[in-house]
Amino acid sequence: MPGPLSSFLDQNHLDGFLYVGESYGDADMYYLSRFLAGDRFALLAGEESTLLVSSMELGRARKESAAHRVLSTSDFHFLEKLKSGKTPDEAYALVLAEFLSQLLIQRLGVPCNFPAGVYSSLKQDFSIQILDSPAASQREIKRPEEIEAIALTQRACEKAMRRAIRLIASSEVRGDMLLRGGEPLTSDRVRLAIELSLLENGCEAVDSIVAGGEQAADPHARGVGPLPAHAPIVIDIFPRSKSSRYFADMTRTVLKGEASAEVGELYRAVEAAQEAGLQAVREGTTGSEVHRRVSDVFQEQGYPEREGCGFTHSTGHGVGLAVHERPSLSEAGGLLKSGQVVTVEPGLYYPDLGGVRLEDLVVVEKDGCHNLTHFQRKLVL
Amino acid sequence: MPGPLSSFLDQNHLDGFLYVGESYGDADMYYLSRFLAGDRFALLAGEESTLLVSSMELGRARKESAAHRVLSTSDFHFLEKLKSGKTPDEAYALVLAEFLSQLLIQRLGVPCNFPAGVYSSLKQDFSIQILDSPAASQREIKRPEEIEAIALTQRACEKAMRRAIRLIASSEVRGDMLLRGGEPLTSDRVRLAIELSLLENGCEAVDSIVAGGEQAADPHARGVGPLPAHAPIVIDIFPRSKSSRYFADMTRTVLKGEASAEVGELYRAVEAAQEAGLQAVREGTTGSEVHRRVSDVFQEQGYPEREGCGFTHSTGHGVGLAVHERPSLSEAGGLLKSGQVVTVEPGLYYPDLGGVRLEDLVVVEKDGCHNLTHFQRKLVL
Repeated sequence: MPGPLSSFLDQNHLDGFLYVGESYGDADMYYLSRFLAGDRFALLAGEESTLLVSSMELGRARKESAAHRVLSTSDFHFLEKLKSGKTPDEAYALVLAEFLSQLLIQRLGVPCNFPAGVYSSLKQDFSIQILDSPAASQREIKRPEEIEAIALTQRACEKAMRRAIRLIASSEVRGDMLLRGGEPLTSDRVRLAIELSLLENGCEAVDSIVAGGEQAADPHARGVGPLPAHAPIVIDIFPRSKSSRYFADMTRTVLKGEASAEVGELYRAVEAAQEAGLQAVREGTTGSEVHRRVSDVFQEQGYPEREGCGFTHSTGHGVGLAVHERPSLSEAGGLLKSGQVVTVEPGLYYPDLGGVRLEDLVVVEKDGCHNLTHFQRKLVL
Repeated sequence: MPGPLSSFLDQNHLDGFLYVGESYGDADMYYLSRFLAGDRFALLAGEESTLLVSSMELGRARKESAAHRVLSTSDFHFLEKLKSGKTPDEAYALVLAEFLSQLLIQRLGVPCNFPAGVYSSLKQDFSIQILDSPAASQREIKRPEEIEAIALTQRACEKAMRRAIRLIASSEVRGDMLLRGGEPLTSDRVRLAIELSLLENGCEAVDSIVAGGEQAADPHARGVGPLPAHAPIVIDIFPRSKSSRYFADMTRTVLKGEASAEVGELYRAVEAAQEAGLQAVREGTTGSEVHRRVSDVFQEQGYPEREGCGFTHSTGHGVGLAVHERPSLSEAGGLLKSGQVVTVEPGLYYPDLGGVRLEDLVVVEKDGCHNLTHFQRKLVL
């Protein structure tokens, strides 16, 4: 479990740091509580941590969460407040105020994404500072068991990638189309294969990308309809483990049929850029330096970014309980530290050629990086 | 698409209503924009709607969203602000301020869950009111195409329920255990069958409940380990359609082996309570009245709530783009209106007997309700 926040609280002269939200979406709340809930609850973090949940969730929270103490909103008469005509948000803010008073909290920190309605109510009775979430900083540096969890998700990710690529490889080229069993092979068909494989391996895919041809020229297009022959197909899978809740992330680009010389060159440029990025990642360098190395390779190879084409995104991002988290490997990226887990994912995008992206997931180490991705790069199937 | 917010803005003397967040989790943002994004974006709703997305998302947002206009954070020099040493949150707040000024917004409404960090920054230059989200009220009353979408998700839900129940029915009773292929049949095995079925039908299950014996006595326990024979197994499935994003929700309780007289009575009491609830739902009554009718049946049948046992939760909740939304069928539940979609899900829970819950999904209508659930209730398999 993460260490206590005592020094953070001392530095900021706070009695506690309060989170309010649900932990399917809020990675900080899950990180600190290890309590998974789709309905709103509160977490007061300090030397010890205290959860405030609905009475419905009390038993489960006491059993499953890592909190030192679990209290219920009914201890503070939530329902009575509702019945007296308060709106749910007003009643909830009153409950929180009583909860904080009972725990002798006066000076409070909250994260930037704290709900403004509750903030505005509590501000009347408490001294509140909006601060960068201390959990978000803690989450950046992964403990060995967290890296292990991410590596396990990555194994499931690779299995799904293998199944997707085999499906494309086993299709039949007919003109500009790919057929399977006489039917056009579609993005949705490949995505379903990915999702079934992930599920069988204890993971869920939030939204995998299987995009070919023109669609692949937009790095965030998920892909729809028949997949093309003779054109690059970008497959980007970012699953989350249903048990550990940790994500992985990887991308491969494949082509079934004949690759044009231009597409072949595009692929080799992305490969070279990714190699440069992987070589550059180490403790003590910066995310912006890694990004610059990657961009330099593209410049040298004759693929400068212009008019929204070329290398249009950052080199990478942190991965953990969220699929996009700190640090950033981009123009604005700061110092890299051992134990961070980041993607290295250069890509090139042109409306006439489509897109090529290659993405590995690595752990930042003292003298380089440890690649968690065990999967070949190969364009033509 | 939902109507414009002009009258809401007029009533509150606002130039616009601003949402900031990501639309996988924030149903209001998805409802208003029909743009699905895992990274933060902004939506200014008014007579027309304007999205503010990262440059990476610009093409996709223009293609996929229902917004009248899409602008990019790079139009307001987000990256340059980051590079000048601002934190991402500071830079984002500055970008938003410029965005609002360009759109001539001075008096702004934001929802209660608006991020406090951004609220606090914008408050310096804009007049801001924190208000109940107008989209949340619009979302309560479903349009015909929304009801159709929910009904389609419900069909997938029923298929998954059928597969789960068949799996339990086909197991072999050995003492207090259920065996399949010589191995204990577990909650996880049944959950996997549910999830695979949902996926094949275009849905995802957030977290299905398959809980037997003692575990079923906690209505929110998802269930783990071997399932018991001769004891009720609660199966609660709440999938979301991957295409429409609309949820469904249903619960059945089944038992493989011999049901004791006590468990049989428990089941019949829940059935009677559900019937009473379904009979009570109609436009013009209140959620609290429906809940009282259900509670009365339990009282009459000798199952009063006490010491955290019995009927420990509310009767139901709205279902739509969120699995739990307005209205509430509970002690604090307000007026029901035609077009709301709600669950009716009484349950009884005792540590020594386990739990029984039955849940249907219905549309509130003028003279009653239309049940979207087509699935028998039967305890013993």
